[in-house]
Amino acid sequence: MTLMRAAVVPELGGKVEIREVPVPEPGPGQVLVRMLASGLCHTDIHAANGDWPVKPRPPFTPGHEGVGIVEKVGPGATLHRPGDRVAIAWLGSACGHCRYCLTGWETLCEAQRNSGYAVDGAWAEYAVASDSHVVAVPDAVSSFDAAPLTCAGVTTFKAVKVSGIQPGETAAVYGIGGLGHLAVQYARAFGARVIGVDVEDAKLELARDLGADHVVNARTTDPVEAVGDLGGADVAVVLATSPRVFEQAFSSLRRGGRLVCVGLPADDKMTIPIFDLVLGGKSVIGSIVGTRQDLADVFALHAAGRTKVIAEARRLDDVNTCIEEVLAGNVPARLVFTF
Amino acid sequence: MTLMRAAVVPELGGKVEIREVPVPEPGPGQVLVRMLASGLCHTDIHAANGDWPVKPRPPFTPGHEGVGIVEKVGPGATLHRPGDRVAIAWLGSACGHCRYCLTGWETLCEAQRNSGYAVDGAWAEYAVASDSHVVAVPDAVSSFDAAPLTCAGVTTFKAVKVSGIQPGETAAVYGIGGLGHLAVQYARAFGARVIGVDVEDAKLELARDLGADHVVNARTTDPVEAVGDLGGADVAVVLATSPRVFEQAFSSLRRGGRLVCVGLPADDKMTIPIFDLVLGGKSVIGSIVGTRQDLADVFALHAAGRTKVIAEARRLDDVNTCIEEVLAGNVPARLVFTF
Amino acid sequence: MTLMRAAVVPELGGKVEIREVPVPEPGPGQVLVRMLASGLCHTDIHAANGDWPVKPRPPFTPGHEGVGIVEKVGPGATLHRPGDRVAIAWLGSACGHCRYCLTGWETLCEAQRNSGYAVDGAWAEYAVASDSHVVAVPDAVSSFDAAPLTCAGVTTFKAVKVSGIQPGETAAVYGIGGLGHLAVQYARAFGARVIGVDVEDAKLELARDLGADHVVNARTTDPVEAVGDLGGADVAVVLATSPRVFEQAFSSLRRGGRLVCVGLPADDKMTIPIFDLVLGGKSVIGSIVGTRQDLADVFALHAAGRTKVIAEARRLDDVNTCIEEVLAGNVPARLVFTF
Amino acid sequence: MTLMRAAVVPELGGKVEIREVPVPEPGPGQVLVRMLASGLCHTDIHAANGDWPVKPRPPFTPGHEGVGIVEKVGPGATLHRPGDRVAIAWLGSACGHCRYCLTGWETLCEAQRNSGYAVDGAWAEYAVASDSHVVAVPDAVSSFDAAPLTCAGVTTFKAVKVSGIQPGETAAVYGIGGLGHLAVQYARAFGARVIGVDVEDAKLELARDLGADHVVNARTTDPVEAVGDLGGADVAVVLATSPRVFEQAFSSLRRGGRLVCVGLPADDKMTIPIFDLVLGGKSVIGSIVGTRQDLADVFALHAAGRTKVIAEARRLDDVNTCIEEVLAGNVPARLVFTF
Repeated sequence: MTLMRAAVVPELGGKVEIREVPVPEPGPGQVLVRMLASGLCHTDIHAANGDWPVKPRPPFTPGHEGVGIVEKVGPGATLHRPGDRVAIAWLGSACGHCRYCLTGWETLCEAQRNSGYAVDGAWAEYAVASDSHVVAVPDAVSSFDAAPLTCAGVTTFKAVKVSGIQPGETAAVYGIGGLGHLAVQYARAFGARVIGVDVEDAKLELARDLGADHVVNARTTDPVEAVGDLGGADVAVVLATSPRVFEQAFSSLRRGGRLVCVGLPADDKMTIPIFDLVLGGKSVIGSIVGTRQDLADVFALHAAGRTKVIAEARRLDDVNTCIEEVLAGNVPARLVFTF
Repeated sequence: MTLMRAAVVPELGGKVEIREVPVPEPGPGQVLVRMLASGLCHTDIHAANGDWPVKPRPPFTPGHEGVGIVEKVGPGATLHRPGDRVAIAWLGSACGHCRYCLTGWETLCEAQRNSGYAVDGAWAEYAVASDSHVVAVPDAVSSFDAAPLTCAGVTTFKAVKVSGIQPGETAAVYGIGGLGHLAVQYARAFGARVIGVDVEDAKLELARDLGADHVVNARTTDPVEAVGDLGGADVAVVLATSPRVFEQAFSSLRRGGRLVCVGLPADDKMTIPIFDLVLGGKSVIGSIVGTRQDLADVFALHAAGRTKVIAEARRLDDVNTCIEEVLAGNVPARLVFTF
Repeated sequence: MTLMRAAVVPELGGKVEIREVPVPEPGPGQVLVRMLASGLCHTDIHAANGDWPVKPRPPFTPGHEGVGIVEKVGPGATLHRPGDRVAIAWLGSACGHCRYCLTGWETLCEAQRNSGYAVDGAWAEYAVASDSHVVAVPDAVSSFDAAPLTCAGVTTFKAVKVSGIQPGETAAVYGIGGLGHLAVQYARAFGARVIGVDVEDAKLELARDLGADHVVNARTTDPVEAVGDLGGADVAVVLATSPRVFEQAFSSLRRGGRLVCVGLPADDKMTIPIFDLVLGGKSVIGSIVGTRQDLADVFALHAAGRTKVIAEARRLDDVNTCIEEVLAGNVPARLVFTF
Repeated sequence: MTLMRAAVVPELGGKVEIREVPVPEPGPGQVLVRMLASGLCHTDIHAANGDWPVKPRPPFTPGHEGVGIVEKVGPGATLHRPGDRVAIAWLGSACGHCRYCLTGWETLCEAQRNSGYAVDGAWAEYAVASDSHVVAVPDAVSSFDAAPLTCAGVTTFKAVKVSGIQPGETAAVYGIGGLGHLAVQYARAFGARVIGVDVEDAKLELARDLGADHVVNARTTDPVEAVGDLGGADVAVVLATSPRVFEQAFSSLRRGGRLVCVGLPADDKMTIPIFDLVLGGKSVIGSIVGTRQDLADVFALHAAGRTKVIAEARRLDDVNTCIEEVLAGNVPARLVFTF
């Protein structure tokens, strides 16, 4: 039996351990993927901590930004072949026949199983995944770039998409980090004028480099006022998770504006001023990751040179240090384990 | 100088007074309308009380569900002629050239002036109104019916419209009164399966008569559970103004569901569980009245026999009693002053 | 080996033959359905004649409006169980992972296989079908009604849906037969004012009974003028297949109007006046059947009492006479083989 | 009485003449604009020739890409003031209260009056225009650039917009000239992958410079095949006016694709293969110029550096030579008269 190194959460709330475990066998409809790159998403930390209502069952391996090569296919797996390069995303599988799956909303499927949460994920040298739900990575996209695109990318792409933004409109992105630096670029790809909002000048400079038309330092200025002076936002995408940022983002909307939430604050509560919501014809929209097609679109945009990924490489052995780095907010945008 | 009887708010928070005042003269671009029917909307009570942040300046005449005959046209008013029957709605006027007016969203125009609030309204024997913003009433719609359609109708029509509901989906209407009894009918007109929710059996029976497929008594059952047993709601339109109803309505949504808010609770705060919003891909949408075209559509639906108005006639002299009736919740659906 | 009676097309263009053939075995992912009702669609006649560019390979059994009971499930078929009542539609199967399947447009899947065309269909006592693509029939829908809904229903439902029609708009339905009598009802279900257009008074009377607000006899009046007098159509759904009807329907559109085509004329050519298309901001939209979810919605609407199916029962043995009846235009709306 | 030089069409089909005529006086609701730049659009040539069904009445002055300074305002004109820089577009005025005007579709208003057609246009040193319908030009947009944006820009922007294209989709632009070079940029601004199609290599090189991801020379390759090899087009915008190009563009669509027509061929007939339209779920969409808000959006995109205008300056005195140049196809993209 061949062994591999894998990051394992032995119990919720504990440290992640690097263990030698057997390389798994692909079951019916599954493929075995040899990992080349695997991103670290904040959700992985929530998973390891068991922060959310529905909890993963330890021991398990996190990771849902996995990119690698198909090594072996299980019985009945016909879509991919050994040698294909594919991505393993949060949407590990979905039922394929509920009203959500049938209408292009597989991300809302009640029967979905999530990678690195309900099933072992991509923080390992090998992972098995659903043949039907891994997504092909085009040649023009490096594995290193593909990893953050697989969750941070598709999540912000979808957030911008559901906002219905159009050229001629303005999008404010609150929080320029692993997700935000991509949100800025997608908002631009959808034709919006983009305002980047953060509390650090370095991140705002990054936003500018990636195409933001304006930036606002929310530490030194009132962002509601500053965005208002720029005419207000038609769309605000909130990637920070403090309730105060949600409220600022909402208040910075002009009439008809839409607040898109993708981040999950610890507190789980957001307060909306109804008067402003109703009279201003505003909306608050929740958005969760993206479909396989969204991810294919994200890869295609990257292949066409429309986006740039900011990330740093790490070794899987350093996973606990990496988590500390992320929690301390010391990382440029995204950390990616390379193998 | 000819005199007329008008309901006047002498000071915010006081009683409404019936006064003899001069019939106003239509200014440039205005028409003078002799009232036939004029509805009582909860907003009028808020106006008289000065409940909202931006307050009307007393003395003023409330009323924004006015239906009557054009008697006289002011200089430059070319759209309507004496003898035309028209409706005076909340949207007294809008600028006509801002981004909202140009994109079919005049209800969000920042320069709009509202009838019975910023300008004297329809609780009087005569009212002047903007020639361009009164809306023609088709012959097949009685003045008595047209009055509640002018605000209660268009507001719920628009609320259902912005929800994007489609045949095959389910709409839950929370609160079956002046607005709710019309919301039920519009939800059906848009092809939805309709669930009526209220705390009184009489209102639920009314909902059934008007086409609701199911009804739920929220006093005797948990509406979240009851709506859930029916498969959940794709859309919930909330016409009650208690924060608790907002939260119940939100919780009764299935994934991908949209909560539409039109009512304005005293408290102005609504709490949304972000986890559910994001993972469920849900939305909260504010909606305010409707455009002139929405009102024309509302009238057309009524003329075609698709809706029924439930209302009772009153005399303007009894306006204070009527307000008490409304506040006590003792009215069937809508009260309409007839002249 | 058990035998069954099946209608078989021995060669393209020939008569259909009733043969005794073996009851098929459900393969992997398939179910065996014992037929209760099976509709006759014009497409079946085109299939038998080999009228279309891509031809079926005889011998084969037509039929894609099949409703029956699952008798047996093949290996790996987990969605349905013996005893379930299901419908077999035109969309026999689709790939499940192309961009169309992933975005709610499985009807455009390039790898789809069609029932009664690429695979044996429902004009038989038994048929095998894809477990994942048969659609559950609710208890409240009779098998007899379900059959025409499975193609005529879902096709016209989808045609109305893609038109984007809204309450306040007007839909003209050209051709009140097997498809048109349902199109009238769906247009109404989507909130439209409906104009029925046909050349026979009996069909127009039927349209009225089913909810058309207006009817136009295109034999005795110029339909372009008559529809124009009613204000023009926002949407025209064309179910007749003569090029002249397409052109009339297009000309009866008001500005911003949309012509939806579902019928396939022998000639395959339609001429559009570009000047009118561009200056009038009009569209011509092709629409083909509907997805599994569309069919579920169609069944739900019928279960809720929103639609009525007009059809006559026939015996499969009379299939050739039935085809003649249809070609002669002598049938009320739809013919359904019952078993 | 002050005189100005103006290009005048003395009779339909004749040469344009440069005449000394009185500077017009702005009437009620009008402004007088001193022209700085004024584009030459193919429509002006059709107007001068009287090519279209509804003809202008000579003598008249063409021109609907006029940019200049407000010199004087007429009675009741309150939106603009002397010194404002504004654009005069094809939509000279619209009624402001029909269903089109109220729903963001003023370009379909039946009562619209068009600049340089129904009213004297911008090929003159001065022009009067509707105060409400001229559009402000932002400081960051030069008058020279603003001129072509006022028709070529807004027309192609709107064509791309109505196509509903999304990032991840592919747009093919047929004809890279005055309109096409902007269509390429708007398609990119909406996030599309862009394929430029033309018969001249110089134009294709221009398309590449402006952001086209791929180009196809339709003289040396079959564009249907070439676009097909690139995966087919989700949207094809046709700016050439030969019927053959329309048909090629339609055939180059993948399933679900949309053909957008803005050009008006002499022949006025387009033939669509219905089989392909229906089975492929394709659409053909007519699109005409854009609204005032669309033009404001076009200017905003240019001000933000998202578009580049390719044009050459000319003197109004050379108008007839310019027309010959355009008809001969010898111009780079757009000709603009400067004053």
